[in-house]
Amino acid sequence: VQTNLSGSGRSVTISSDGPFTVIGERINPSGRRRLAQALSRSEMSLVRSYAMAQLEAGAHLIDVNVSVSAVDEQTVLPLAIQTVAEVTDVPLCIDTPNERALRAALEVCPGKPLVNSVTGERASLNSVLPLVEEYGCAVIGLTIDDQGIPWDARRRYEIAERILDAAKACGVPAEDVVIDPLAMVVGVDQQAALVTLEAIELIRSRLGVNITVGASNISFGLPERSLINRSFLTMGMAAGLNCAILDPLDVEMRRAIAAADLLLGKDDFAVGFVGRSRHGW
Amino acid sequence: VQTNLSGSGRSVTISSDGPFTVIGERINPSGRRRLAQALSRSEMSLVRSYAMAQLEAGAHLIDVNVSVSAVDEQTVLPLAIQTVAEVTDVPLCIDTPNERALRAALEVCPGKPLVNSVTGERASLNSVLPLVEEYGCAVIGLTIDDQGIPWDARRRYEIAERILDAAKACGVPAEDVVIDPLAMVVGVDQQAALVTLEAIELIRSRLGVNITVGASNISFGLPERSLINRSFLTMGMAAGLNCAILDPLDVEMRRAIAAADLLLGKDDFAVGFVGRSRHGW
Repeated sequence: VQTNLSGSGRSVTISSDGPFTVIGERINPSGRRRLAQALSRSEMSLVRSYAMAQLEAGAHLIDVNVSVSAVDEQTVLPLAIQTVAEVTDVPLCIDTPNERALRAALEVCPGKPLVNSVTGERASLNSVLPLVEEYGCAVIGLTIDDQGIPWDARRRYEIAERILDAAKACGVPAEDVVIDPLAMVVGVDQQAALVTLEAIELIRSRLGVNITVGASNISFGLPERSLINRSFLTMGMAAGLNCAILDPLDVEMRRAIAAADLLLGKDDFAVGFVGRSRHGW
Repeated sequence: VQTNLSGSGRSVTISSDGPFTVIGERINPSGRRRLAQALSRSEMSLVRSYAMAQLEAGAHLIDVNVSVSAVDEQTVLPLAIQTVAEVTDVPLCIDTPNERALRAALEVCPGKPLVNSVTGERASLNSVLPLVEEYGCAVIGLTIDDQGIPWDARRRYEIAERILDAAKACGVPAEDVVIDPLAMVVGVDQQAALVTLEAIELIRSRLGVNITVGASNISFGLPERSLINRSFLTMGMAAGLNCAILDPLDVEMRRAIAAADLLLGKDDFAVGFVGRSRHGW
């Protein structure tokens, strides 16, 4: 299945046939104090430089999140979206839990963005999906429902199925829903990665939709986070993951993705891998 | 299932429950000219130092292969086995296609070694399995038959099943057969890794035996071989691989294995991973 997205000047297709799609995670104030302070002053220079650096590093989409206390999202999110759209031409990923900020961002966002996110919670389905349909964009569906995040793969798969049903009922086609089966912290629960990998397999084989995940959370609290993140992503890609939100400035992560695409038969004649090994990752 | 092996002083269990098992590949003259020359003179100092270095680097088993022209395997293999057994206490992996050399090596090898290997070819089954039964050791079964190496996963699985049947008929229990579904060169066939990963899944889920692979072949002819090898191994471990023949001196490979064990729930409370990140991989 193909999820077609567009920015001000470029189209991107998330697909199980082609190479992996990278969504740059850096424009997010969580854990980034300087960015949080800048956003609270509606100051956009860091947003601009993070966008350009991620594009330079090969990000296919740029996630834009300004959620932090002291920031009026409804004003600052559209401003950040416009800022990123000025300096990049790729599709954007509008990342907010705030319905009014989402609408304001959709009003100014060029092309066909990806909304991050809807969940399986009743209130989220009812508020986000109509906006996704109205603006003709695509959406990430998180496998959470009103009971929280299930600790087994089958229930995450069932929530994914319910999100797809609700999307269809709203006029949003399945190819415009990218499911995120959630990667929890492996230092807290040793089964965390296994549950996510099993959910990826179930969702890929039974629902056939595109699948994304946040790749940086799994290693929280542990040493060698980049190593753990890229090992998890490599496993996920073999299981059917075809997109992730991650730090594109992590060169080891980029190398791991190129190697995984090669091994999974998504790099004809190894042209991409060999080229990058010669001219820089 | 558990494959129990022993050396002169240490036992090793290959198991899907525990951490990954590493078989050190370095004592092999293929592509190592100095070692080939030394072996042709029955000179054992390199064998000794390679054995010690691999043990130091955390190898659980040491593979011993002396197959090269100008070497009389029937004399040199038992000598090399004795040499390695003098300087290490771990189980050995006796690696030869030569039946008489295998018998001579088994005569002098302490403990319960792993024989590398039997294939699904009639002649191999008939010559190797009786020796495995006679000496009470374990054996690696390669998924090759008289038609060669199949290019699809299902046929490799079927050969694995036939090897297990033949072993049983010979009195060798299934837990003493470790299947190698073969990793071919991904630069030659882009489906090579996918076929092996699918074979691992099939063999694990339907036959329940332990699975090994040679992890260094897949990247032949490509740049960044260590990166490709460890990415492949990471995917294989998620699919059910619990053992591999590889270069234990590759520290990035050791890091990748530790991360994969952690992610696959085989490192309780991340003790192994955190310990190694502090005190060296």
